[in-house]
Amino acid sequence: MAEGVSNAPTLADLGEWELIRRLGAFAPPGQFADDAALLDGSSERALVVNTDVLVEGIHFSDTTMAAEDVGWRAAAANLSDLAAMGCREVLGLTVALVAPAATPWAWVEGAYQGLSTALRCYGGTLLGGDCSGGGQRLLAVTALGRLGADGPIRRLDGRPGDALVSTGPHGLSRLGLAVLLQEVPSPAAPDWHQAAPALLERSVQAHRRPRPRLDAVAALASCRPGGCPWRVAGTDSSDGLVAALKVLTQGSDCDALLERRDLPFDPEMVALARAESWCLNGGEDFELVLALNPAWARQLIKALPGTRRIGSLAPGSGILRWADDGSPLADASGGFTHFH
Amino acid sequence: MAEGVSNAPTLADLGEWELIRRLGAFAPPGQFADDAALLDGSSERALVVNTDVLVEGIHFSDTTMAAEDVGWRAAAANLSDLAAMGCREVLGLTVALVAPAATPWAWVEGAYQGLSTALRCYGGTLLGGDCSGGGQRLLAVTALGRLGADGPIRRLDGRPGDALVSTGPHGLSRLGLAVLLQEVPSPAAPDWHQAAPALLERSVQAHRRPRPRLDAVAALASCRPGGCPWRVAGTDSSDGLVAALKVLTQGSDCDALLERRDLPFDPEMVALARAESWCLNGGEDFELVLALNPAWARQLIKALPGTRRIGSLAPGSGILRWADDGSPLADASGGFTHFH
Repeated sequence: MAEGVSNAPTLADLGEWELIRRLGAFAPPGQFADDAALLDGSSERALVVNTDVLVEGIHFSDTTMAAEDVGWRAAAANLSDLAAMGCREVLGLTVALVAPAATPWAWVEGAYQGLSTALRCYGGTLLGGDCSGGGQRLLAVTALGRLGADGPIRRLDGRPGDALVSTGPHGLSRLGLAVLLQEVPSPAAPDWHQAAPALLERSVQAHRRPRPRLDAVAALASCRPGGCPWRVAGTDSSDGLVAALKVLTQGSDCDALLERRDLPFDPEMVALARAESWCLNGGEDFELVLALNPAWARQLIKALPGTRRIGSLAPGSGILRWADDGSPLADASGGFTHFH
Repeated sequence: MAEGVSNAPTLADLGEWELIRRLGAFAPPGQFADDAALLDGSSERALVVNTDVLVEGIHFSDTTMAAEDVGWRAAAANLSDLAAMGCREVLGLTVALVAPAATPWAWVEGAYQGLSTALRCYGGTLLGGDCSGGGQRLLAVTALGRLGADGPIRRLDGRPGDALVSTGPHGLSRLGLAVLLQEVPSPAAPDWHQAAPALLERSVQAHRRPRPRLDAVAALASCRPGGCPWRVAGTDSSDGLVAALKVLTQGSDCDALLERRDLPFDPEMVALARAESWCLNGGEDFELVLALNPAWARQLIKALPGTRRIGSLAPGSGILRWADDGSPLADASGGFTHFH
């Protein structure tokens, strides 16, 4: 294909973020600035639409996930983007299924059972879709939802002084992946082989069955202090906590000041050597990372178990720093790349 | 993958139609009965959503299509389903792009230029999407649109006595594919090598740049005779004319009686040996095939150039027959299969 093009950059040369930036030029200005797209943004209960694709060998494999898990995850990843946009109601999903002709029907059935289970949990129905043969299995899912009466959650709406909040622990999904892949820990350090069985089980569940935090949007709406306007910046942490914080800070022209002692670990993960790195860059935890009025943040933390304040926004230029000494995070490059 | 499953049917064993039937069981009853999904069906200007996937090696190849054509087709195939549902307004598209890391950016850029050109022609914007690496190039597109004030076009709404109407010629796209693939004609019969250059050019254009017939929906609405209620059955002919007619007749518990002399050829195609077979089963013409009140059909034929009456519906059980002698079509099995 196109071998005659010389010196032409490939997708691998660009990397995922640059690719998305370039594709955004085909959309109206700002259209790609959020986790999902808003239609009829001016009307109450505006429509939200999001598309996510899960590809065999990149997002899932038979080693780590049963078919039901793949279906659940395909739905959950999409619904997580709806939650990150402030959705209060899931309308449903369309699914494009691509699979080799030799794929057992039982696998496809399992994947759709997983999708259906997620819809039963979070609302909406299977609306339609398409299917085709192809060289590897994949599900491209589009989710439709509606905002509540309050308004959207936008990436760009952070302000200096906002509290940074995480709705749950980070790193757990990456630990689950390590368990499933039987990754070998470094010999020098205690690692997940020493972890409590309950933690390992929880981490595998977090990897296979992530929960879209639509409940967090409902909690946000119900605990907003009187007189506090609806302004909340947020994104989901599907690409990792650091990637989520970068998106929020760069969008809002702020730096993030992170409290090292308040990193959102699962409490039992603290002893693991790679806990900090997985918490920051593990990815696929699908929690919401929010920047909002500190008084509202305190109410949310009371109302929504597992939520914690992890730092604050300060005037800046999109740099992530430790609050104690202002030093930038050593490795803030994290997040997935899907072209390698 | 799942090699332990013995005697388990594969997708190739099921075939595409049976697969779609089984997947429909995961959706509410009747949800998969139309070309696209209707949301808020009770409200005026209801939302319509459709997903179509285009896979390299199955739906396109570098031999037959430039990147811009692939993008155009991905949009057009989706918008054609919106038209087949009765859409009057295109809101936009989301796109899941999967491509190997070695794919040149120039190809992706071309594909998005093709998508954008289609949106400029038919309305709507690029709303969002996702991208990932993968073994082969594909675009999974979801289109969103709205009905007009009149109502939807449903596959199941045909009645005995309805006129069957095609909004344009069939077989042209298949001829274009033959030209692009340099298929060898049968030595005994004159074939496309003898066709007029203008026809060949038109056929290649039909294959590469199919037109979603949103204009036909507008014409339907504006030419409806006074007192004639809005009831029109229809589908698009993306899978071939025979497949479209089967969908309409089976949905409406009717037989189709086809006038052999009124088969919707391009006039210049009549001389080609394979004209009838390509007209019936070539596929990818993306015209609308409609069943409606004969008086309304006459108005539509006057209002919309290229539209012709091809037969009528009669009481029956989904069989396609020639009107002159009532005999069933010899090969009514046509349509694509995407699992082989």
